Amino acid sequence: MRIAMAQINSHLGNFSANADKIIEYTKKALDRNCDLVLFPELALFGYWTSDLLERPSIVAAQDKELEKLAKKIPEGIGVLFGAVTHAKKTDIKYFRNSAVFLQKNKKPKFFHKELLPTYEVFDEKRHFAEGELVKNVLKFKGKRLLVSICEDIWGWGEAWEGTRYVNNPFRALRGEKFDAVLNLSASPFSKAKDERRLSVVQKTAQYMKCPLVYVNMVGGQDELVFDGGSIAVDKKGNVIAESSYFEEDINLVDIDSLEGGIRPHNLTSLKKKDKDLEAFRRAIALGIKDFVAKNGMKKVHLGLSGGIDSALVACLAVDALGPGNVTCIAMPSEFNHQESYELAKQLASNLGSKFYSIPIKDPYEGMLKAFEDNISKEDFGLMNENLQARIRGAFLMAYSNRHHSMLLTTGNKSEYATGYATLYGDMNGGLAPIGDLLKTEVFALSEYYNKEYELIPRRIIDRPPSAELRPDQKDEDSLPPYKVLDKSIEKIVVECKPATTKVDKEVLKMIYRNEFKRWQAAPIVRVSKHAFGTGRRFPITNAAIL
Amino acid sequence: MRIAMAQINSHLGNFSANADKIIEYTKKALDRNCDLVLFPELALFGYWTSDLLERPSIVAAQDKELEKLAKKIPEGIGVLFGAVTHAKKTDIKYFRNSAVFLQKNKKPKFFHKELLPTYEVFDEKRHFAEGELVKNVLKFKGKRLLVSICEDIWGWGEAWEGTRYVNNPFRALRGEKFDAVLNLSASPFSKAKDERRLSVVQKTAQYMKCPLVYVNMVGGQDELVFDGGSIAVDKKGNVIAESSYFEEDINLVDIDSLEGGIRPHNLTSLKKKDKDLEAFRRAIALGIKDFVAKNGMKKVHLGLSGGIDSALVACLAVDALGPGNVTCIAMPSEFNHQESYELAKQLASNLGSKFYSIPIKDPYEGMLKAFEDNISKEDFGLMNENLQARIRGAFLMAYSNRHHSMLLTTGNKSEYATGYATLYGDMNGGLAPIGDLLKTEVFALSEYYNKEYELIPRRIIDRPPSAELRPDQKDEDSLPPYKVLDKSIEKIVVECKPATTKVDKEVLKMIYRNEFKRWQAAPIVRVSKHAFGTGRRFPITNAAIL
Repeated sequence: MRIAMAQINSHLGNFSANADKIIEYTKKALDRNCDLVLFPELALFGYWTSDLLERPSIVAAQDKELEKLAKKIPEGIGVLFGAVTHAKKTDIKYFRNSAVFLQKNKKPKFFHKELLPTYEVFDEKRHFAEGELVKNVLKFKGKRLLVSICEDIWGWGEAWEGTRYVNNPFRALRGEKFDAVLNLSASPFSKAKDERRLSVVQKTAQYMKCPLVYVNMVGGQDELVFDGGSIAVDKKGNVIAESSYFEEDINLVDIDSLEGGIRPHNLTSLKKKDKDLEAFRRAIALGIKDFVAKNGMKKVHLGLSGGIDSALVACLAVDALGPGNVTCIAMPSEFNHQESYELAKQLASNLGSKFYSIPIKDPYEGMLKAFEDNISKEDFGLMNENLQARIRGAFLMAYSNRHHSMLLTTGNKSEYATGYATLYGDMNGGLAPIGDLLKTEVFALSEYYNKEYELIPRRIIDRPPSAELRPDQKDEDSLPPYKVLDKSIEKIVVECKPATTKVDKEVLKMIYRNEFKRWQAAPIVRVSKHAFGTGRRFPITNAAIL
Repeated sequence: MRIAMAQINSHLGNFSANADKIIEYTKKALDRNCDLVLFPELALFGYWTSDLLERPSIVAAQDKELEKLAKKIPEGIGVLFGAVTHAKKTDIKYFRNSAVFLQKNKKPKFFHKELLPTYEVFDEKRHFAEGELVKNVLKFKGKRLLVSICEDIWGWGEAWEGTRYVNNPFRALRGEKFDAVLNLSASPFSKAKDERRLSVVQKTAQYMKCPLVYVNMVGGQDELVFDGGSIAVDKKGNVIAESSYFEEDINLVDIDSLEGGIRPHNLTSLKKKDKDLEAFRRAIALGIKDFVAKNGMKKVHLGLSGGIDSALVACLAVDALGPGNVTCIAMPSEFNHQESYELAKQLASNLGSKFYSIPIKDPYEGMLKAFEDNISKEDFGLMNENLQARIRGAFLMAYSNRHHSMLLTTGNKSEYATGYATLYGDMNGGLAPIGDLLKTEVFALSEYYNKEYELIPRRIIDRPPSAELRPDQKDEDSLPPYKVLDKSIEKIVVECKPATTKVDKEVLKMIYRNEFKRWQAAPIVRVSKHAFGTGRRFPITNAAIL
């Protein structure tokens, strides 16, 4: 049996476009003589359904599209894709996360997800009732196939801090014979996720003693980036097919001959360190691209300071949208070195992007005077630093208003953790592309961009990082060295471990103290196991600094 | 048996303070000759635990406090309070939401919550494993008591759009004899919630044919306000005790004689319309008070425009913190009527609050010139309106920085829905006190403030609402009349109903189009069944405008 793995980029809520794509890829599969075509989880609805499911009018629209789609299925192929379906009247929730099997002129068959992830960015028990994996048997063309959906194959231990799957639904199927396990996924990217994914795919295939065909979604959705990388393994766990990452793909696998396509240029061919960086680059570029396009925009802009964070965001934005759609704006003050301006200008020129400059000295002095004349006069302090950042933020938003362009914010994860960023200033923006990269990762990815030639002027990388908001300021005057700081952030935020060292404890306090800033932060493109954003729900009011 | 209902204000994560309070109220109960004292759900931990439970170090600190507390229980009384406990090794989650029963020199007893709300602001299945109500029998001093926790008594139908409790855990107990059902709650306030609460309390008592004693938490926690109003009913559902609302209280009830305290000045004595308004007033004032105090602050300030929204926020802030802790700042521009300034000043004087004024004409013209000289010149438009709002926002934050004062933002729910607010401008602030009041409710509550004398100058209420960001602007130039608009918002946002009328459809589009602004909004004090904020999780990227 020949199976097509159709790794598509669904658009959340755009049911007709998603249905068209399902038909388009079904035809491609038919052209390639496939018996069956697999699509990702919720391919028709789009993933991160969340509270859209509280609007019955929305599910009704998907249902209608599903009916229309059923009539368009061509002869000679089975089509299996994810969709929202209605739960039983005795279920606690109204919906199910299902796989729908369609064939021309036959009644549709439904299979329901059993393990509903409810941790980190996942809220599935908020809206979905549980199915039973043991019931998900699809008999088709003489084969006995087991239909699983995403999390169903992740039940081999602790899934996340606070969630352990003691009742792995595959245990109830031990010893049963299947010709293959199918898995429809919408599994978002995070660092080295492909390795963890391969591991659960292999464990499941080995446990069930049959091949496993795994199809993942691709595309950006707010904070999440689905990275594709669909895969098929034989019963021993050997990879027999692997699809591209971060782009739509259709790939074939035969579960009898155990032959399939292995994409030549996928990430797997890279060495570990480069692989992680290339994955970051592609994940963030796709995150930007889809966020901008799926929200009906074309252009972005950012404040380019001559520092490394904004330099990296500019590179990623150009990767995502092309230089013609990216505008860089320098806003030098009396505290910026002339070199910063020159470096920003040089980078914009290297990228081929538009470049503007607005000196902020006069507006800053004007606003300061107005405040001090009318309220209070004090020595230079935090207020003066933040005021500069907020004036810049206001200019960047003025550019948004005038030029229908989306502002990208340039903060990194180390800044978000420590609060080393100005709320309503440099935190302004529609999306935070590198908000989940630690500063040390920002350096590494910048070096990676410079691998072939000096795209980012060397001095941008080499100069000691500075916010340049007061004379001779350096980040390390107020923060631990980034190498040390990032280790603590990784330990506390990503791994949820207790603070043990002196630096850890200092960092922990900063993290809690700045919860109020992150509450109001732009969506952050998630590239780690635990990003700031909706996957990390901490209170502002909280006395447990532990 | 004499039971004390100890309705305390727990501080999330402040385990030692919460334990001290439990001891303090236990002694009060003992002084009043009570056999048993009941505290709210999670009284020791504080409610809205959320991802604090992903840090084992935090739960360990609560466990330690629990041990210490057990040793301090005085002789002669049973103490029942809520705490986080550890789940069984076979549970999917690591923790349970439990009631702990302590007596001097006796082993503690534990009872676990069965119904775990996972909808709206509640995420309990994210961290808690389910208990079984049928096991929650407490035998004490010859009485047979059933211990339930909050949601356990809410299983009489649909709990929320998308959640129906088909398996009400009380059904398994039908016919069993108890001397009373006890319920420990952390049930947040929303409009008329006390009525729905009374209804489930009564249903449960009638079903179990015994009295029910219900103790609710009180206090503000970020978006949530717990309103207290602890209650006891007899087996017919007649109220035999009712505690104060929005303040700590200890009240008594005897489950044999069916006598208890009815607080004379609680909300129930007010007429329906005034009751709702008084509840709004007290909920929001408590929300402000606890948010400010529990975050270690004392003072707040706000931009006072001469419009009704900021006027109402000023009144509420003064209610919460006293006039000496509230500073009002007017920031007139060329588009503000002189009358607006005079009215703002008058109100500040009526309230007895500090009042400043910073004219924004010069800063606005300076920033506009800098932008237009360096980027692009265009006719007056949205950019010019937003720039004014952002300059004001920057001044207000400058005041925060200089005077260690928390900015309150003044937007209402109608504005948040339609996006009629400037991100990084008037949306700036640490808390949005009236962000869950529709504009029509803002009017009603303002009138309520003026009931006895003209606290809010009459013209503030009577003038047609205007943002005053361009000449002769009126809200109703760009929005439907508020009466019509608010009906649509109520229907779509609060009731989750489909858009049917022309206005509904227009409003629906505005709501979706402005999701990106709300993603970055300050915490909103929740006073309706469905507020904007963490209880409403909609994507930014979404094509289903339905």
